[in-house]
Amino acid sequence: THKQNLARLQRKLDRLHPADIAWILETLPLADRLFVWELVRADKDGDILLEVSDAVRASLLETMDHYALKAMALGLDADELADLAPDLPAEVVQAVLAALDQDEQAHVRAAMSYPEGTVGALMDFDLIKVREQVTLGAVLRYLRRFGALPDHTDKLFVVDREERFRGLLTLESLLVNAPERTVSEVMKSRAVVTFRPDDDARAAAQAFERYDLVSVPVVSERDRVIGRLTVDDMVDYIREESEAEILGNVGLREEEDLFAPVIRSVKNRWAWLAVNLITAFVASRVIDLFQDSIGQLVALAALMPIVAGIGGNAGNQTITMIVRAIAMGQVESAALGRLLRKELGVALINGLVWGGVIGVLAGVLYGSPGLGLVMIAAMTLNLLLAATAGVLIPLLRQRFGGDPALGSSVLITALTDSGGFFIFLGLATLLLL
Amino acid sequence: THKQNLARLQRKLDRLHPADIAWILETLPLADRLFVWELVRADKDGDILLEVSDAVRASLLETMDHYALKAMALGLDADELADLAPDLPAEVVQAVLAALDQDEQAHVRAAMSYPEGTVGALMDFDLIKVREQVTLGAVLRYLRRFGALPDHTDKLFVVDREERFRGLLTLESLLVNAPERTVSEVMKSRAVVTFRPDDDARAAAQAFERYDLVSVPVVSERDRVIGRLTVDDMVDYIREESEAEILGNVGLREEEDLFAPVIRSVKNRWAWLAVNLITAFVASRVIDLFQDSIGQLVALAALMPIVAGIGGNAGNQTITMIVRAIAMGQVESAALGRLLRKELGVALINGLVWGGVIGVLAGVLYGSPGLGLVMIAAMTLNLLLAATAGVLIPLLRQRFGGDPALGSSVLITALTDSGGFFIFLGLATLLLL
Repeated sequence: THKQNLARLQRKLDRLHPADIAWILETLPLADRLFVWELVRADKDGDILLEVSDAVRASLLETMDHYALKAMALGLDADELADLAPDLPAEVVQAVLAALDQDEQAHVRAAMSYPEGTVGALMDFDLIKVREQVTLGAVLRYLRRFGALPDHTDKLFVVDREERFRGLLTLESLLVNAPERTVSEVMKSRAVVTFRPDDDARAAAQAFERYDLVSVPVVSERDRVIGRLTVDDMVDYIREESEAEILGNVGLREEEDLFAPVIRSVKNRWAWLAVNLITAFVASRVIDLFQDSIGQLVALAALMPIVAGIGGNAGNQTITMIVRAIAMGQVESAALGRLLRKELGVALINGLVWGGVIGVLAGVLYGSPGLGLVMIAAMTLNLLLAATAGVLIPLLRQRFGGDPALGSSVLITALTDSGGFFIFLGLATLLLL
Repeated sequence: THKQNLARLQRKLDRLHPADIAWILETLPLADRLFVWELVRADKDGDILLEVSDAVRASLLETMDHYALKAMALGLDADELADLAPDLPAEVVQAVLAALDQDEQAHVRAAMSYPEGTVGALMDFDLIKVREQVTLGAVLRYLRRFGALPDHTDKLFVVDREERFRGLLTLESLLVNAPERTVSEVMKSRAVVTFRPDDDARAAAQAFERYDLVSVPVVSERDRVIGRLTVDDMVDYIREESEAEILGNVGLREEEDLFAPVIRSVKNRWAWLAVNLITAFVASRVIDLFQDSIGQLVALAALMPIVAGIGGNAGNQTITMIVRAIAMGQVESAALGRLLRKELGVALINGLVWGGVIGVLAGVLYGSPGLGLVMIAAMTLNLLLAATAGVLIPLLRQRFGGDPALGSSVLITALTDSGGFFIFLGLATLLLL
């Protein structure tokens, strides 16, 4: 009956969509995952490998020999092969390329030549091109010869005799217009969205979102249609970008295989911990400067984390907002003055209100009105520092061509921690001791 | 020439896509925004209002009188009207509903009756239905009568005489098959993705991603096709969800109008600051318990933020990973033991390695090997606490039906701050004093 169970499981797997099998493999611990992977029909291997996360993909590829890898890779489209190629042994890639016809080889090489994050790296080559002088009836007969259309075909690409891009023939206009009309009469040639292969993928994703697109032609500098971008790839791209942003916010380099060995997880996370330890160590040295003050008034030690904490929180709110606005193209460094004034206003109100609450509380608790006033002043000043840094850090980085998001949370927290300790302990030393 | 410039600006705006005008309005300070808004052609008002963020939408709606609002609302589709209705004055909504025909009224009421976050709230009603016994040629003739198809039509919905859902006729199969064949011969009726109106929108978005869908029928319990979901709405949904997650991580309730008055921003952000002040205050009371120890050994005050900080960072890494895995449906509470063991392993290694580095450094700096050992022990214990809480908090919340993500970062930081101070100062008091 073990055999029967196996056969039943195998039949179940055969009926599943590759994306569903990929999801199952993600959720399984390593041993179970490889057991299921063995049962999957080989012709689904490629589609599954394209769907799983990098971490899980590595664990699956390790189990395949060169023969299986080659068979799998030969079943892929050019753009899919280009995606997987970096994870495959070089010999396998060479052997597979050699087995392709010239057009396909060119496609794979083209797709691999564009750096990650460009339109070229995401495009596919499933184009249907038509000429402008033919009738819609002729196009309909032409399509019937195909038997199937590429996924996400919502339009055909109209080219002239020199293969230059002329416009778009949507399936809609093909369907609602009389078959006697010609392509040139019904095609869309103005205000057409096209991309170049070296365009930024993020801008392309924004265009898909903004104009509700399904497929867009990718056109070379010499006006040739060389590929197309489809909405399914953009959905994946948007999802991956936001994943990366969320993971990056806490210093995770990549999506982690939940069941990865401990040591791999340690590697994925160590850099962020190291950076944070360095900044915490700096903050610790700042506190150490005020040893004498703390020795005289121990309450300072208890109150100082409050000042540092509120600065970090408010600063992270500001920087998150500014980074997002920059990413959406909503803010230019010209707006600096206006944004700064606004954030400083928010900080001042928060400082006086929340600083006031905590200041009164501290003053009463420790029976020292002076200590309360120092709390209010220190919290307000640290919030002003947080607001200034929260606006300036991302805008300056943008101006100097850096990524405004990268490690911004670490930076601002480091600043508001050390700054908060310095401001609070410094004020207390000056005014109370 | 002011007049000429105005006319030129107006012509430019007339040529722009509503989504582009929406983007421009987002980037402008309030006065400029309203100035441009006045120039926009009234027939674009509705589309623009649907595109802008909630904050900007409110600022634009404030400037429109009831007459303009009614004219705008009458130009919307049922699902769009349902989206905007909560932001419109009740009289306007009533007047617009009264002007619609019965079918449309029913659509608007249906769309408004489904709570946010369900498929019903996102679906539209632009359906093209066909019968299974007709030929493809008849379908082609039927489509030509339309003049235009609804956006994102990649398939038609096949229904029987009682309007029950029978299957899907893709435009592809309509185009590649001979016109003499019947719909029933080429339609897809097995393994078809459909949604119910009360399905979770998040699950629907995952299905769109996983199966690369463009449109999906929404089917009632009695098997009637009542609407459809399209990929453009899913793209917006995925984007909004990830925005909300990123903003929620720092306690921003909603996307903020960059140029909103200070007071509105204060309101958007105050709750998070209040919660953090409370947790910081608790941590401060924990430190206060050890006043005597700090008085005797001031170095403790300088070192304690390091212990608290590394716990918070590591805990946020763990909880981010677990929350994401839960959201992707990759983790069941059954996996608790396994995940916990792994995270504890990671914490132990990080504690011994990083605790060791900082411990040695602290021991040397303060000339006290004992203090170094206490640092190592405290950092390791706080990391183990962080790992345990990072796994347990989201999994327990999921088991008890809560949102695993909500405020998780605040919770874990509160725990590792207070816990870190308590562990470090407690150990130091026991072992060093």
